[in-house]
Amino acid sequence: MQDPKEYIAQHKDRFLNELIELLKIPSVSADSAYAEATHQTAATVAESLRKAGCDTVEICETPGYPIVYADKIIDKNLPTVLVYGHYDVQPPDPVELWDSPPFEPVIKKTDKHPEGAIFARGACDDKGQMYMHVKALEYMVANDKLPCNVKFMIEGEEEVGSANLAWYVERNQEKLENDVILISDTGMIANDIPSITTGLRGLSYVEVEVTGPNRDLHSGLYGGAVANPINVLSKMIASLHDENNHITVKGFYDKVEELTQAERDKMGEAPFSLDEYKKALDIDAVYGEKGYTTNERNSIRPTLDVNGIWGGYTGEGAKTVIASKAYAKISMRLVPHQEWEEITELFKTHFEGIAPAGVKVKVTPHHGGQGYVTPIDNVAYQAAERAYEQTFGKTPIPQRSGGSIPIVALFEKELKSKTILMGFGLDSDAIHSPNEHFGVWNYLKGIETIPYFYQYFTEMSK
Amino acid sequence: MQDPKEYIAQHKDRFLNELIELLKIPSVSADSAYAEATHQTAATVAESLRKAGCDTVEICETPGYPIVYADKIIDKNLPTVLVYGHYDVQPPDPVELWDSPPFEPVIKKTDKHPEGAIFARGACDDKGQMYMHVKALEYMVANDKLPCNVKFMIEGEEEVGSANLAWYVERNQEKLENDVILISDTGMIANDIPSITTGLRGLSYVEVEVTGPNRDLHSGLYGGAVANPINVLSKMIASLHDENNHITVKGFYDKVEELTQAERDKMGEAPFSLDEYKKALDIDAVYGEKGYTTNERNSIRPTLDVNGIWGGYTGEGAKTVIASKAYAKISMRLVPHQEWEEITELFKTHFEGIAPAGVKVKVTPHHGGQGYVTPIDNVAYQAAERAYEQTFGKTPIPQRSGGSIPIVALFEKELKSKTILMGFGLDSDAIHSPNEHFGVWNYLKGIETIPYFYQYFTEMSK
Repeated sequence: MQDPKEYIAQHKDRFLNELIELLKIPSVSADSAYAEATHQTAATVAESLRKAGCDTVEICETPGYPIVYADKIIDKNLPTVLVYGHYDVQPPDPVELWDSPPFEPVIKKTDKHPEGAIFARGACDDKGQMYMHVKALEYMVANDKLPCNVKFMIEGEEEVGSANLAWYVERNQEKLENDVILISDTGMIANDIPSITTGLRGLSYVEVEVTGPNRDLHSGLYGGAVANPINVLSKMIASLHDENNHITVKGFYDKVEELTQAERDKMGEAPFSLDEYKKALDIDAVYGEKGYTTNERNSIRPTLDVNGIWGGYTGEGAKTVIASKAYAKISMRLVPHQEWEEITELFKTHFEGIAPAGVKVKVTPHHGGQGYVTPIDNVAYQAAERAYEQTFGKTPIPQRSGGSIPIVALFEKELKSKTILMGFGLDSDAIHSPNEHFGVWNYLKGIETIPYFYQYFTEMSK
Repeated sequence: MQDPKEYIAQHKDRFLNELIELLKIPSVSADSAYAEATHQTAATVAESLRKAGCDTVEICETPGYPIVYADKIIDKNLPTVLVYGHYDVQPPDPVELWDSPPFEPVIKKTDKHPEGAIFARGACDDKGQMYMHVKALEYMVANDKLPCNVKFMIEGEEEVGSANLAWYVERNQEKLENDVILISDTGMIANDIPSITTGLRGLSYVEVEVTGPNRDLHSGLYGGAVANPINVLSKMIASLHDENNHITVKGFYDKVEELTQAERDKMGEAPFSLDEYKKALDIDAVYGEKGYTTNERNSIRPTLDVNGIWGGYTGEGAKTVIASKAYAKISMRLVPHQEWEEITELFKTHFEGIAPAGVKVKVTPHHGGQGYVTPIDNVAYQAAERAYEQTFGKTPIPQRSGGSIPIVALFEKELKSKTILMGFGLDSDAIHSPNEHFGVWNYLKGIETIPYFYQYFTEMSK
């Protein structure tokens, strides 16, 4: 019988190569051009779960991409851990900014990852972190150390709103019954400062379309005389924040959870260097809502960001045209108690309301999800804390994240269980960006830590 | 000996087919992908001038696309008309909005063109209008009716700023000596309301780039804490107009020509229906600078329009990203006395000045040109007026256009001669837009009218 460290040392190369093969499959759920690869990824994940020791493995069809379900039930009287992850990835563009092709993984050393990091789209978000759980299961099964029941639910539409995961969960509540949900789809502060995410922001994602004249016009013959949809869209977007960078959408802040000064002070204790933050992004100043620190702005406060904008002539050279239409993709990060459907409605009403005469405005909701908070006084959180203490030699810091995993709130509602967010990535791993990567050390450290969570959670649940 | 009408009736089909062949060649000067076709167009134009009767025909190389020069000098003591036109065309995109392929010309009837119109990119701007002069020359030479000397200068970079035309003109002042410059690259009010363009707006065209963080960021982890280049660019663009739609660029209006109320009243006499204008564009309201009418806004007042904007994720679906960069193409239409280089400088200084901390801003000038006004009391204008009276049976209305032909001001400076803008297109011909077209009646009417200009101009110059 080996402990995780030994077993990992012995199988390290295989663990890396298996992940690299998985990363080669371009499972971009947002772009239908990658549909075949995305289905193929589901099949590969299913096979890896069978090999790792699951007794049941199913590729469950949905109206969209399939959900991979797998389980190993050793004793109905023991607790059950449900592992959630996703096998789809963000689009790789802008591809030209990648130093190596996004779907040809390479291992390179970085300042933060002296033992090397795997560079590929999905390396950290979420194929790498999801696969840690597959390998942790392999370890536990191979060494007869699985202390409880385990279920896996790996979806393929997380990057596009998990619409069909909700559909699936609602239809399989009994099958998915569990005592705790375990997810690695977040980050930690640093390799020597472990942290566990205890809060997530919600999300409302919309697309807006501004239509002016019924055709593109010559900017000389019509310029100055008709509403230019791009100028109008810019004005409308600009008006969504006031001079203090508060969001102006009517009713937007009504339900926002206000933290006490004590809670804010505790948050303030997390190690953070504004200079390093600015240096890492090569910016001369941060920017955001008046009255809040950078760490508050990106975690406990709601936001509104334009994620994409386009209209008119964007090719080489010059075209003197007034476009008929202009578009933007806009997302709002929400905090606990803000209802995402309600915020989407408020935005739609507000945005349509501020359209000037001379244009038509259309707001199309994309997707969204609720924020979430994990109580740090429950057994599952404490089991996770002990697992980190065991492998990092330090107590992890509970941390609010600015990111969104909408389905966490969904799980609580549908499956009545809490989620533990054991993330092993770093902010600098560039998820959603060119050159996304995941530290080799972090990957292996995750595989090492997970089995201890199973052990302590089982013991403490007795 | 025939008059133009008979000759045109006899050769109508050939005149149409020759133009259709010319329109099939995609001479898009803004996009280097069309370089070969653009050169081929120059050769085709040169050949047509030789066939029409020019004695000298040259394809003059420049640092960019060549300039086609041709002439027929019958007597050094007679006046010389210099015809200018351009063989390059605007990019065809958005191609999906064309009812027929932009470079596969088709003739279809429309409400405004009951005798049919040729649909193709460049049909009106400017291949069709330029080719009227080639066919008018053919008529005059074939029927021994050329009363004076004629020179042609047809360029291939008008849609991208004519940078090398200036280069060429400066180096060939003697060769280009003339008594009047004749251009058909503008429009008229309606087929039963002929008009001659007596004023043009200048142009300053720039591209702006806003850079925030040094890489695309996850909008959850960073949203609200760093300046989002798209939101910032939108705010900056919005601030370029005040609540009355006056342009806020410092010093922008300092040299603007202010017309007298009498001049404005005279302009107001031109037939115009705001309802039809709105109906044609399917807009519920016009939009523009406070204190001016629609016809004033698009002719005697300067403007600032965004011609293109892009940044972040613009593909299918959703991507929760904060882009590192956002871009826009911005053009300003200028009126007489505004210096385009000075306005470009003022814009650059202003735009860089309003950039908030947290972003870097770059302004790249594209090209520009001066505005221009033709005096209606000179011989050339009066000769044109008589030519229209001859063929339309009506006195043409002098009209200010909102468009720009920067080289008209250049010609006056370098060649010391005035330009007559005999335009036969209609505003509704959708130049610079999908489904650009040119009326068959207008094309033939232009060929019929031009020889009379030569005749009257020669007589009146004696």
